[in-house]
Amino acid sequence: MGNIDRIKYVASRVIEEKEKGNDVVVVVSAMAGETDRLIKLVKEITPEPNERDMDFVVATGEQVSAGLLSITLNSLGYKAVSLTGWQAGIKTDTAFTKARILDINVQSIKEYLKNGKIVVITGFQGITETGEITTLGRGGSDTSAVAIAAALNADRCDIYTDVDGVYTADPRIVENARKIDEISYEEMLELASLGAKVLQIRSVEFAMKYKVPLRVRCTFTTDEGTLIKEEDKEMEKVVVRGIAHNKNEARITVERVPDKPGIAAKLFEALAKANIPVDMIVQNVSVDGYTDISFTVDKNDLTKAQKITETVAKEINARGVITDDKIAKVSIVGLGMRNHAGVAGKVFDTLAKYGINILMISTSEIKISCIIEEKFTELAVRVLHEAFHLDK
Amino acid sequence: MGNIDRIKYVASRVIEEKEKGNDVVVVVSAMAGETDRLIKLVKEITPEPNERDMDFVVATGEQVSAGLLSITLNSLGYKAVSLTGWQAGIKTDTAFTKARILDINVQSIKEYLKNGKIVVITGFQGITETGEITTLGRGGSDTSAVAIAAALNADRCDIYTDVDGVYTADPRIVENARKIDEISYEEMLELASLGAKVLQIRSVEFAMKYKVPLRVRCTFTTDEGTLIKEEDKEMEKVVVRGIAHNKNEARITVERVPDKPGIAAKLFEALAKANIPVDMIVQNVSVDGYTDISFTVDKNDLTKAQKITETVAKEINARGVITDDKIAKVSIVGLGMRNHAGVAGKVFDTLAKYGINILMISTSEIKISCIIEEKFTELAVRVLHEAFHLDK
Repeated sequence: MGNIDRIKYVASRVIEEKEKGNDVVVVVSAMAGETDRLIKLVKEITPEPNERDMDFVVATGEQVSAGLLSITLNSLGYKAVSLTGWQAGIKTDTAFTKARILDINVQSIKEYLKNGKIVVITGFQGITETGEITTLGRGGSDTSAVAIAAALNADRCDIYTDVDGVYTADPRIVENARKIDEISYEEMLELASLGAKVLQIRSVEFAMKYKVPLRVRCTFTTDEGTLIKEEDKEMEKVVVRGIAHNKNEARITVERVPDKPGIAAKLFEALAKANIPVDMIVQNVSVDGYTDISFTVDKNDLTKAQKITETVAKEINARGVITDDKIAKVSIVGLGMRNHAGVAGKVFDTLAKYGINILMISTSEIKISCIIEEKFTELAVRVLHEAFHLDK
Repeated sequence: MGNIDRIKYVASRVIEEKEKGNDVVVVVSAMAGETDRLIKLVKEITPEPNERDMDFVVATGEQVSAGLLSITLNSLGYKAVSLTGWQAGIKTDTAFTKARILDINVQSIKEYLKNGKIVVITGFQGITETGEITTLGRGGSDTSAVAIAAALNADRCDIYTDVDGVYTADPRIVENARKIDEISYEEMLELASLGAKVLQIRSVEFAMKYKVPLRVRCTFTTDEGTLIKEEDKEMEKVVVRGIAHNKNEARITVERVPDKPGIAAKLFEALAKANIPVDMIVQNVSVDGYTDISFTVDKNDLTKAQKITETVAKEINARGVITDDKIAKVSIVGLGMRNHAGVAGKVFDTLAKYGINILMISTSEIKISCIIEEKFTELAVRVLHEAFHLDK
């Protein structure tokens, strides 16, 4: 939610749905800049605040916007009520600042709906079993919305955002990128995981798990947006649904690792213990009993990951550790890849034709990801978009 | 609470008390300007927001400052925990924006204290029986503090504020006004009711009802401040404890009212029905079966009160209604007045000596209030302060 004008706009969209005869539950995020303002206040005190109190502070952002939206709806003659996460019965675990929803007791929401009210709920937050306020981590309002929709068995969950849907590629990079009308949960999950920023990954996971049809729409247009739903026969006909890219990873390579069982485990267990998620992992074929291991991590984790890797490298008698943060990951995603051979070959050919060297490759049933030099990112996205005729 | 620097200062005061070996519960107000900012946001939407959602929004102000104070304490190595009104068990009635505390379930506070934690609680708010967030009305943080102190059977409740105590008169008006070291609940209640702005009236009422010693101190000095407590023998020796003044009232006079039973009742019932509190009421002696009735109301209520009075005046065949908003109320307060004759006489003499006309008089066992022309306010306070030697 942005400023007051934006809240008024959101109210008008809510009223549209209500006037269609629907029961409406709205889940709101904080107003633009509000969460950042609160975090800045906290960071003025200490760079390492305790997370429980951090959530206690930051959760107020959504409370303000939920209250303001309800006030707006009431002032326009509609019966609305605002609810915090705990009032809405959103139970989470105790992982402050990145809690997970465990359960939603929708009884009070249902009661309000039965009385004809529009229910406005603070996204991004919940409450632990012992009554502590938690937040779901940034962007968690989408997840809240989907979880509530699932718990209520809602017909559909609409996510209002700045863009009018999911595109075949980032429209800022590919001029003729096309808005996708329908996409499967699996494809959306891959695209979101691979760098498309339209939706939070966890919100898509939730929608898939509970089979909640999800629609991404723009707050400011009447466009139908993109519908994310269970795959059907029609969807499989499309080989490549879209292209995602991600410049936020860095690569770490451990050189000349003795190729013995348990060596890789040692490294990745140490990283896991430090809560550093590892994305792609590539291990070369062993030569003379030695091998190289490369993997990617989020750029924010690079310094920490490098330190840990260097410690482990010494322990396992590897030659050394080199890092590269000037890389990008470009990925193509499509259900149809399952039944089409030659997709990978076409990707490699296309990139080679433009002199783009592939540093790492990772594939799954419905996606192919390539790590390339960062400077080629936009070019790679454009030529792949064209090669697979995604503008059609 | 002001800005971050102020929060850090408050933290240092809290730590002082903790280091003395005390269990400490801190009740915080919102940061300076925060409540106004939130109200402004709401008023941008509608001048008449529904009060339930209004409280939902405004209550976040204290939540932010409680969280920030707890973060500060934790960052300094002290174990602290922040609690909202509902987490602290503060039950109120359902009068949104001006709720009253019904009960405090201090079990969770006690549990935290037992575990050695400093407990930081949001002032100014609570929760209804059905789980709705309420606020106590502006300035209600003082009341929260006293109520929690009472419920916990605390040794003392310290109210930190901008001034370093209660003075014999407003120091901005009387240069040699003296800080009062000790004052009785009754005297403080009169002073607060009569215009002294140091403490909220309801917080003093609460302290008196539950016999919680209350200390008003400045956040930024180490001065002991003013202790408000049950009266003792020593206190009665002081005839006049302090002087208060109030420029926020206006006078309404109904002229030539037929002096029949039930006439005054008719007027004041109509005002009560419109929720307009009436302060002083004076009725002159009847002449020829007619009398004049004068009373004072808050300036904010004047327009509304005038309309109602004019309607009633017609019904009861009075001659007319005149109003005056250029008045002030100057009051002297002291327990010793009970046993000293001649105090009223000295007040009237002193004012007369300086040509200050008294428009209305109201007295109780421990106070004398005079309504005078507004332009004489400061002069009246100064000459009374001198006449009763309050600087000594």
